Amino acid sequence: MANGFVRRFLPVLDWLPRYRSADAPGDLIAGAVVAVMLVPQGMAYAMLAGLPPQIGLYASIVPLILYGAFGSSRTLSVAPVAIVSLMVASTLGGLAEAGTPAYVAGALVLAGLSGVILIAMGVARMGVLTAFLSHSVISGFTSAAALVIGLSQLKHLLGIDIPRSSLFVDVAAAAIPRLAETNFATAVIGLGAVGLLLLMRKPLAQMLSHLGVAQSVIAPVTKTGPLVVVILGTLAVWLFGLDRAAGVGIVGVIPGGLPPLGLPAFDPDMMVELAPAALLIAIVGFLESVSVAKALASKRRQKIDANQELVALGMANLGAAFSSGYPVTGGFSRSVVNFTAGANTPLAAIVTALLIGATVLLLTPLFHFLPRAVLAAVIMVAVASLIDIRTFRHAWAYNKADAVALAATFLAVLAAGIEPGIIFGIALSLALFLWRTSRPHFAVVGRVGKTEHFRNIKRHEVHTCPHVLAIRVDESLYFANASYLEDHLLKEVADNERIEHVVLICSAVNFIDASALETLETVITELRDAGVTLHFAEVKGPVTDRLARTNFLEHLKPGTIYLSTHEAMVALGCV
Amino acid sequence: MANGFVRRFLPVLDWLPRYRSADAPGDLIAGAVVAVMLVPQGMAYAMLAGLPPQIGLYASIVPLILYGAFGSSRTLSVAPVAIVSLMVASTLGGLAEAGTPAYVAGALVLAGLSGVILIAMGVARMGVLTAFLSHSVISGFTSAAALVIGLSQLKHLLGIDIPRSSLFVDVAAAAIPRLAETNFATAVIGLGAVGLLLLMRKPLAQMLSHLGVAQSVIAPVTKTGPLVVVILGTLAVWLFGLDRAAGVGIVGVIPGGLPPLGLPAFDPDMMVELAPAALLIAIVGFLESVSVAKALASKRRQKIDANQELVALGMANLGAAFSSGYPVTGGFSRSVVNFTAGANTPLAAIVTALLIGATVLLLTPLFHFLPRAVLAAVIMVAVASLIDIRTFRHAWAYNKADAVALAATFLAVLAAGIEPGIIFGIALSLALFLWRTSRPHFAVVGRVGKTEHFRNIKRHEVHTCPHVLAIRVDESLYFANASYLEDHLLKEVADNERIEHVVLICSAVNFIDASALETLETVITELRDAGVTLHFAEVKGPVTDRLARTNFLEHLKPGTIYLSTHEAMVALGCV
Repeated sequence: MANGFVRRFLPVLDWLPRYRSADAPGDLIAGAVVAVMLVPQGMAYAMLAGLPPQIGLYASIVPLILYGAFGSSRTLSVAPVAIVSLMVASTLGGLAEAGTPAYVAGALVLAGLSGVILIAMGVARMGVLTAFLSHSVISGFTSAAALVIGLSQLKHLLGIDIPRSSLFVDVAAAAIPRLAETNFATAVIGLGAVGLLLLMRKPLAQMLSHLGVAQSVIAPVTKTGPLVVVILGTLAVWLFGLDRAAGVGIVGVIPGGLPPLGLPAFDPDMMVELAPAALLIAIVGFLESVSVAKALASKRRQKIDANQELVALGMANLGAAFSSGYPVTGGFSRSVVNFTAGANTPLAAIVTALLIGATVLLLTPLFHFLPRAVLAAVIMVAVASLIDIRTFRHAWAYNKADAVALAATFLAVLAAGIEPGIIFGIALSLALFLWRTSRPHFAVVGRVGKTEHFRNIKRHEVHTCPHVLAIRVDESLYFANASYLEDHLLKEVADNERIEHVVLICSAVNFIDASALETLETVITELRDAGVTLHFAEVKGPVTDRLARTNFLEHLKPGTIYLSTHEAMVALGCV
Repeated sequence: MANGFVRRFLPVLDWLPRYRSADAPGDLIAGAVVAVMLVPQGMAYAMLAGLPPQIGLYASIVPLILYGAFGSSRTLSVAPVAIVSLMVASTLGGLAEAGTPAYVAGALVLAGLSGVILIAMGVARMGVLTAFLSHSVISGFTSAAALVIGLSQLKHLLGIDIPRSSLFVDVAAAAIPRLAETNFATAVIGLGAVGLLLLMRKPLAQMLSHLGVAQSVIAPVTKTGPLVVVILGTLAVWLFGLDRAAGVGIVGVIPGGLPPLGLPAFDPDMMVELAPAALLIAIVGFLESVSVAKALASKRRQKIDANQELVALGMANLGAAFSSGYPVTGGFSRSVVNFTAGANTPLAAIVTALLIGATVLLLTPLFHFLPRAVLAAVIMVAVASLIDIRTFRHAWAYNKADAVALAATFLAVLAAGIEPGIIFGIALSLALFLWRTSRPHFAVVGRVGKTEHFRNIKRHEVHTCPHVLAIRVDESLYFANASYLEDHLLKEVADNERIEHVVLICSAVNFIDASALETLETVITELRDAGVTLHFAEVKGPVTDRLARTNFLEHLKPGTIYLSTHEAMVALGCV
């Protein structure tokens, strides 16, 4: 039996030896359902990434198995996803022509670099760094990316020719005049597929529900939509020869056989050039993945270890790099399907991987006549749900500044592209936080009736006394708000000649940094020069501990740190 | 009588019409004392900036008067200072040869740009932005700058030839092998001046104090040190012909007459190139100035308006740009001298300006034989006090991280130069703050005896109950710590099967941003899926107000927001 450390680093050693046969049926069914969903998805997302379709299938074999061995989630499905595919396309678009060997080689390098970055972050326990990508930024970015993705598929959906670009405005400007060049047969297939996919979601589920079909059957059935449109579309092209007769774009020859194994090209210049994009792909992929993993794990009161997740996703991406794939991560809808279809252990993902392996070995000739418009429809319907207006509305109602950060990120991604947009969003949200904390809220407090409670004089009916100013600061004190505090206190004192004592109530002060401590010492001196004594009240334990290490208490004299505001007011003759 | 707005924007309209004759003696004496101090200082700092000596005197006339009209401080002395002079030298060093017309023109452009930037920040009320330069960064930067300045003056002090560079390491490496080339007469004068300046500080004051001389006389007398060494040095060179006989470097011909007025060269390319440096000069100058102004104003219970200070310093720098000067700011020691020598109103600064004006009109021939070594001595003694080890020690005892930020800034300025060093320091201190707030402190609390108080179970003897986890989070909740909170709560619940309710105590939560709100909603769902109900207690008024704007309370059900922890524990059957 492996010890705790190894079991933690390699969770397969935990779940596999203890595998219960009761878990097998759920794992087998869920693995098969996900495979049915993943075959069209893998080919579609590869097309979105500008890669040949088999690369998407290759990326759905080894990564799933490696994640199963290393991941702390039991039900995450790690394979290609839309957003990461778009990021790959946006990164490699400037490097080589889509689909060329150089382009495919670049995708391997991106997967390898992302893998190394993820593992390094996991080993260094830096998972917390990803927290600096706020929900607002992710939401704005995701919505914009969904629009970019949807627009990029118009050319396949309608059979028109639009030059590639990662800038939404460029693509939109190029697309509009060419809508007239739409290929009729392609558009019928594409829009038909979109309609059918939409029908097979809610409407089909409602119909089956009315017919009394069990929910456990309905959920997997509605997920077969992509497979159904793939089969119907392929049959239509094959039967009517639409590829030659009507100019419908098809997938064409897909090489059969298991993915070729091998090292990604070792090209230091290319690695340096791709490193920033690989970092962003790693972080965005990790955030999508870990949020799904957490949501699913908590439903069964299981735990997700964020740093282990980094290692596992990193191994999955390294696996993709060594098996002719491209960057992968845990996808939201696919993992939910895996979970609801009954997956109990990572064996389900391994079943999926084996089925995809069988597909590339045996079934690729079947996809020859698959119309690209059908894959575009699969992508567009999948990403439509990523356009997230609810979060914006929510933020707007709750806090305008956060909503503005979200909208600004959204617009920046559309206007400037993915990388600059995300970086702008991160910088903006950090600036917003710093701004917020640099102008803390102050409340002058007074005594409520004859109690020991002191409350904001603006919100409550309270008693104050003229020679003591009791003021609560609602923020930790640090360099960016220290002089704001100083100005505020000096102004209060300069405005009111009768003040002899100031009591600073620190119940919401979680720390005081060295700069703020310097400023407090300056304030003590400045107030003393003005004939006013500064006191403190309700200073927290950890803050007091730190203050005690300096000569602050000496400096404060005759000022004192009182345990409670009430105690201070009694001592200062105010109660 | 001017109205409030105009009086606020132009404080001279406030103090001049109400000028009391009782204030005149103090203003006249203080103005004269500062002039005596400023003549050698102005020439010395101009030399430090790589400018001809008269530029330093020019910069000590119009700026003083303009600050007197616009400034909110009564006693600030706005003229050349050491740090800003070094920043000018470091900026222009890459642009032109020191002392050339292009170099002098660059100094005017820097002053003009700094002026415009300061005024713009003041009008836009952006003074708070300067708060992001923390004490630690300023302290590290100032100490490093003082070392760079001191080292840069070695060549004048010892009469050796060292190539100019703003990198400490380069200058130090170039200087050491040339120490052997020291000019004997120059070194005697230079080191003699250093010795005399040091003697005229504390030792002279102590001696005079022993002799019973009044403190009000001692303070100004000890400030005449620079004038005394200037006179003695000049006499020595003139009497013994040391410039020709012994190769002592002298100031030489200083053109007489008032400063030529005129526009700085309008060169857009140069402006773009100098803009970042001008911004840094503006911010560093403002911070030095406003901290002195605040300290002096509070001694008389007067107020400083930071945004008005920006405007006034900006006007002073524009004045310098139009009157052949270079960037200026409120100097610490000079302003303190002005204050202690009895300045009551900005009239003292105007007196100083008039005396400097008289000096450039009449006295410049007297400075012909002034040895550069004496000016170097004045600079070195002045900046020696800027080397600030106390703040580092203080920070080290109080908070290692802040001390490390200080030391890193210090080393970065020495190793990479002023601008990169400051920017590195700012980035580091912001990162430190974000890091600190991204990993908040949690305290699981229990009931103290039979009271209504709940305290940290690790610090106090308290009672808890197994089915309720009461946990206090000591930080505002925002995107960077939201998932840390989520992980922490899920881990606590996963580790303890008996928990049915979690009470999150928010007494130290000053705000919850939109991202954190999303995460809280996720946590509510995740905990509910695990059979646990989340509640809140002690949520602050402003936070509750915001939450009420959303459907959070609906989402929370059956969880509740309790007013106090005690109320929550009673309701959950724990008390």
